[in-house]
Amino acid sequence: MESVGELGESGVLGRVLARMGEARAAVVGPGDDCAVLRVRGDAVVTTDTMIEGPDFRLAWHDGFELGWKLAATNLSDVAAMGAVPTALTLALAVPHDTPVALLERVAEGLDAACRVLAPGCGVIGGDLGRAPVVTAAVTAIGELEGRAPVLRSGARPGDVVAYAGELGLAGLGLSLLFSEAADADGTAHDRTIAELWARHPEVLAAQLAPAPPIPLGPIAARAGACAMMDVSDSLSIDADRLARASGVRVRLETERLEGAFGAQQGVRVPVDAMLTGGEDHGLLAVFPADVELPVGFAAIGSVHEGDGVRLDAAALEPRGWDPYTVRPPGS
Amino acid sequence: MESVGELGESGVLGRVLARMGEARAAVVGPGDDCAVLRVRGDAVVTTDTMIEGPDFRLAWHDGFELGWKLAATNLSDVAAMGAVPTALTLALAVPHDTPVALLERVAEGLDAACRVLAPGCGVIGGDLGRAPVVTAAVTAIGELEGRAPVLRSGARPGDVVAYAGELGLAGLGLSLLFSEAADADGTAHDRTIAELWARHPEVLAAQLAPAPPIPLGPIAARAGACAMMDVSDSLSIDADRLARASGVRVRLETERLEGAFGAQQGVRVPVDAMLTGGEDHGLLAVFPADVELPVGFAAIGSVHEGDGVRLDAAALEPRGWDPYTVRPPGS
Repeated sequence: MESVGELGESGVLGRVLARMGEARAAVVGPGDDCAVLRVRGDAVVTTDTMIEGPDFRLAWHDGFELGWKLAATNLSDVAAMGAVPTALTLALAVPHDTPVALLERVAEGLDAACRVLAPGCGVIGGDLGRAPVVTAAVTAIGELEGRAPVLRSGARPGDVVAYAGELGLAGLGLSLLFSEAADADGTAHDRTIAELWARHPEVLAAQLAPAPPIPLGPIAARAGACAMMDVSDSLSIDADRLARASGVRVRLETERLEGAFGAQQGVRVPVDAMLTGGEDHGLLAVFPADVELPVGFAAIGSVHEGDGVRLDAAALEPRGWDPYTVRPPGS
Repeated sequence: MESVGELGESGVLGRVLARMGEARAAVVGPGDDCAVLRVRGDAVVTTDTMIEGPDFRLAWHDGFELGWKLAATNLSDVAAMGAVPTALTLALAVPHDTPVALLERVAEGLDAACRVLAPGCGVIGGDLGRAPVVTAAVTAIGELEGRAPVLRSGARPGDVVAYAGELGLAGLGLSLLFSEAADADGTAHDRTIAELWARHPEVLAAQLAPAPPIPLGPIAARAGACAMMDVSDSLSIDADRLARASGVRVRLETERLEGAFGAQQGVRVPVDAMLTGGEDHGLLAVFPADVELPVGFAAIGSVHEGDGVRLDAAALEPRGWDPYTVRPPGS
């Protein structure tokens, strides 16, 4: 199989960029010193790096899923500001003997995620370097269309707490992978991956190629959301961050969580998994009580004076999956 | 010395961001899902990764110089579009036992380069991850202030070719380092670095912490530059790229190169070093013949019908430093 080292930087970059559609807002695409991007209103910018080992395992992730997840996790940060994603840049650094085909699959996954989750958004620039392990850095840019950004700090007592997207499924997927596709020391292997995809496609897709509801970010902003963030670490951790940023208490309700998210994609999801599972990248949004929630959002709680996060009447300890230390229940 | 692993991600990111000034165009700085940036006119975007080993050696680069060079190389790409740099994002991934002090030095160097080279520009967002070697990805954003971008493709027969910045000094610095601060197999060491800084500060600074003339990018655009790029690989390679993109022939003149760049910072620079040394990140710009060159640019040649690059009447083979294969003359 042709390697990156054999093809050379510009050859690889050409093959990778050819697999990705244009960004609608691109005035000048890849190939000059910079890309040029049309922006309406203020721009939002976020950056995220995924590194083989700590952040993903090639035994579990195909290149396509890796590219998809890279795009999805950055797009959800843009959506969480109430902005419309317009462009991504992709910096890849890989070992010399990496098959070019792997990078082409990354590009295809990234492109597919843009097309499906954020139509019109595309890759406007890239960079390719050498590294001991596969290293991918994505920067995502979005436009606010003249609106103010929706920050984490805008929640006020009396507001409604809502969530849109999958909740806890990605964490169940990670738990399943550690339980069924890792050796006793936690090292990922691919011996059972095909079988797991056949038996549990929902939770594996949620973990390996999450599909957050990107268009609901600007829709929530237009509807009047006063605080918003994407849930990357876990609902309990990120609700705590929102509560701190806003100087309020967030109260989540078991009954509402069970009612809205107890069954997702035909999978039974326990409330504990909703509270502690990370990486779903759905939108945690806060709306004034008189706002009708946009379709796609479910009310899961309310905002009060005080601090921290409660589940019903009880204090809730922020807790999430840590892929380095957590072993799934029963293992 | 406190390590990244001991302090943890948010602690490290807090310490790193605290060392960097705010971007003037930042509406919302680091800490939310995205930063928010005010943009006048279209935005330009570029991304670049530097990885320990292929791209820099910690034996030669202090963290400060590494941060400086990361900023400078991205800022020059923004300037080369005729744009004003407004913001950087910094994604760092490092081994668990990396001293926090190294990352603080990287932040200080990045901040210093912004303050000196592009006042008002600053870091608006960061990400920290784990990697087997120090890996840094910077994305730079700039604004065109309502102007069209200056591309590589705008050179026309009759135009004047000009250059601003240092030319060949950075390559001489790399040559010196390979000759005096590397073992026979090319492995960098730091045994002679202090002495080299004392003896040859100009070429070491040019290589390790280059200071390209960033404000001259927008100045050239306002003056009417019709093509521009930064010289990163070498003048002969990048002039060839500009000639190809524009569908013209570029003719450089020995006498003009010697007159303008034969002595820089008190260092005698041979024409061959100007043509083949890379990493100066100065601006290669093309102006219509009737435009008065902005102060800081020197005419070094002219544009003609045809293709490729000539030095006076002779064809010039594009050639540059390759840090993997090149050994300095005489070694």
